[in-house]
Amino acid sequence: MQNQFKTHVKNNFSELYSGRLLLAVSGGIDSVVLMHICAAAELDFAVAHCNFHLRGEDSDGDQQFVENLSKGMEKECLVAEFNTEEYSQKQKVSIQIAARELRYRWFDSLLEENQYDFLLTAHHLDDSMETFLINLSRGTGLEGLLGIPEQNGKIRRPLLIFSRKEIEEYAQEKGILWREDRTNSETKYLRNKIRKNILPLLKDLNSNFEQSFVNTIANLKETFVLSEDASKLHYAEVVTQKKDSLCFDIKKIKKLSLPKAYLYKWLQPYGFTAWKDIKNLLDSDSGKKIYSEDYVLLKNRDELILYSAVLERKEDKYYLEQNQPLHYPLKISVESYCDAELALDKSFILVDEDLIKFPLTVRKVKEGDSFKPFGMTGTKKVNKYFKDEKFSQFQKENTWLLCSEDKIIWIIGNRMDDRFKIQDTTTKILKIQTTL
Amino acid sequence: MQNQFKTHVKNNFSELYSGRLLLAVSGGIDSVVLMHICAAAELDFAVAHCNFHLRGEDSDGDQQFVENLSKGMEKECLVAEFNTEEYSQKQKVSIQIAARELRYRWFDSLLEENQYDFLLTAHHLDDSMETFLINLSRGTGLEGLLGIPEQNGKIRRPLLIFSRKEIEEYAQEKGILWREDRTNSETKYLRNKIRKNILPLLKDLNSNFEQSFVNTIANLKETFVLSEDASKLHYAEVVTQKKDSLCFDIKKIKKLSLPKAYLYKWLQPYGFTAWKDIKNLLDSDSGKKIYSEDYVLLKNRDELILYSAVLERKEDKYYLEQNQPLHYPLKISVESYCDAELALDKSFILVDEDLIKFPLTVRKVKEGDSFKPFGMTGTKKVNKYFKDEKFSQFQKENTWLLCSEDKIIWIIGNRMDDRFKIQDTTTKILKIQTTL
Repeated sequence: MQNQFKTHVKNNFSELYSGRLLLAVSGGIDSVVLMHICAAAELDFAVAHCNFHLRGEDSDGDQQFVENLSKGMEKECLVAEFNTEEYSQKQKVSIQIAARELRYRWFDSLLEENQYDFLLTAHHLDDSMETFLINLSRGTGLEGLLGIPEQNGKIRRPLLIFSRKEIEEYAQEKGILWREDRTNSETKYLRNKIRKNILPLLKDLNSNFEQSFVNTIANLKETFVLSEDASKLHYAEVVTQKKDSLCFDIKKIKKLSLPKAYLYKWLQPYGFTAWKDIKNLLDSDSGKKIYSEDYVLLKNRDELILYSAVLERKEDKYYLEQNQPLHYPLKISVESYCDAELALDKSFILVDEDLIKFPLTVRKVKEGDSFKPFGMTGTKKVNKYFKDEKFSQFQKENTWLLCSEDKIIWIIGNRMDDRFKIQDTTTKILKIQTTL
Repeated sequence: MQNQFKTHVKNNFSELYSGRLLLAVSGGIDSVVLMHICAAAELDFAVAHCNFHLRGEDSDGDQQFVENLSKGMEKECLVAEFNTEEYSQKQKVSIQIAARELRYRWFDSLLEENQYDFLLTAHHLDDSMETFLINLSRGTGLEGLLGIPEQNGKIRRPLLIFSRKEIEEYAQEKGILWREDRTNSETKYLRNKIRKNILPLLKDLNSNFEQSFVNTIANLKETFVLSEDASKLHYAEVVTQKKDSLCFDIKKIKKLSLPKAYLYKWLQPYGFTAWKDIKNLLDSDSGKKIYSEDYVLLKNRDELILYSAVLERKEDKYYLEQNQPLHYPLKISVESYCDAELALDKSFILVDEDLIKFPLTVRKVKEGDSFKPFGMTGTKKVNKYFKDEKFSQFQKENTWLLCSEDKIIWIIGNRMDDRFKIQDTTTKILKIQTTL
């Protein structure tokens, strides 16, 4: 196994030889074997051990064991102690998720602060087969059947081609000692069932099951990459990037082999889940919307428009002080101005300072809003203005108003109000500028 | 289940209502339930039963049972009896494959002769899950994890959404009788292991496993379609169809995300299996080849050229008689001709009948072949001619020679030999014509 490891690392992870590595070591057989084998391969590594304080003396014993082992190998050993139960309660997550979050957050900070190149974990082939079967049992897509990835960001998993049996045999052959992990968390319980009951049966059907599984995963990964290619190729045809939004051409979507599958690929990263509704949106009335936690998908004529839900929160109101430019939800600054020229550029207006009252407010349009369009004497409903200017549903919903008390100064980026314009009597001019 | 069946057929197989159907009925619970449920849905069907004579009296009992059941439902029952063991021995295939070949061959003929629109089989969800796990245990690609298809050509499988348990419950509820199948073929043995041991464990991990499995398969099918889309999109860019061959542009192949995966998609239908060699072919010397049973893949400069292995069999020799045109491997005909004009069209030559001796032969070039090019006095090696004319490796290998005894008359479609040309002394002219 030692030689196979070296060959595998040489062929697939040659970067590890020149890197400063961090090994995640629990003290269990897998990570301890990884430590021994990395030492034998003369890799440059330090050890990171998490003490989650979940098993009393056992947890401290694990820590002691890993510290001693590191000392024996003359390797630095970094230890973090966590109050996992408290974190779990505070964050309202399971103990298992708490441990994962604490662990990876710490590893991330170690990688960054200490300039380690890679984090090595000891996941092996049986872990990957178990993950496959857990996901299969729960229902999944192709991604859920790809097993555990050999690399992911700065994480490398060089034992992933080795079975649990090979690791156990290696430990025995080399007289390696380790600590038994007696945790019995929910996932461990599920994994144990699969490990003890299901995997042996599959191996019984085919004595070469492990190699077959590796081949299957390699085949599935290839098909997955092809499906990603198709997604990218059609994305380029169908989707147009606008300033604050993505526009999906419905006619083009409908010509795809499986519109729903493509929409899934494209919209799933934005947290959407109501795939049936999204498919129906293709044929629904203009103006209909579907929400994810952070995004909105709007049907607008022949397009689906995707934009941030922040733009949608009409009730939101932001305050603009004279000396404090606004950065969110859009950038607006105010400065004194001395020249009385007309604002021809839609990105700014010039107003009479004496006519407005700080703080100004920035908000979306409300039912009944009206203003006096610059150059006109009468008032006009803002919605009527939108209609006359042929604003799309999307534009309407994403246009901000700048107000002084309850009066509209500016339909930002579009038209200012006549009441605030500079006149012959104006003594102080303010330039209010936005970069949308 | 009866109502669910009707809804499912209505939504997915409405074609069945107006069709003349053939039901494959073994007499086992699945096909007998299918028969009852199709009768209840008032579908127009006949029954087809195969007696494979593999289980003595049991086989005859099954036949009797199906015949009686059909009679009771006033449905036509077609029966075929097979000597499966004899067929298996003669064809050197397993009993199981023999039975499958005999069965489907008969079904095909029934569909064609009797104008049935569809063949219905009683495969159900557990069959599909078993197929998934069998393929997984053996190693597979995404296609092997798609379960049993609901339709395939004229075959329809309307029970595929129902579990074995639902079928058993339905049979019990309706007091339906069936014949137990005591066959224990190799696959049945494997299926039994999966059915009895593995599936219950997976269902134990998730009480809703069946529905999750259905969802998983639906997801995998979508991803498979996307991967096919990518394959087709890039195929159109990379591959050029020539008369006798397909040309793959190597530079374009190398720019793909996964050249090997695309080559797999494109070449697998031609029976290739040596994927590593095929990938290496991209960087190998011009002239290198890889063979499948029926095809050749040739590296020729910046192209991979795929052509039928028939074109490759240099040892093959075909005989051309004066009154019997040749149809294979290329079309050549001979006719008497009266005019002594020059053959300007490369598709034919005019020769002096008295100078040639039938049967003529059609063969590929051999080492040492030489001829007297038309209009020249000296002889020339055919390979030298190819070189001078800048033939590609592919063209060289696909050029046929027409010979009279051991003399070359014509490098077909290219240059004729000077020795056979019509002269002033010629009395009988033959026109030899090819349509490559």
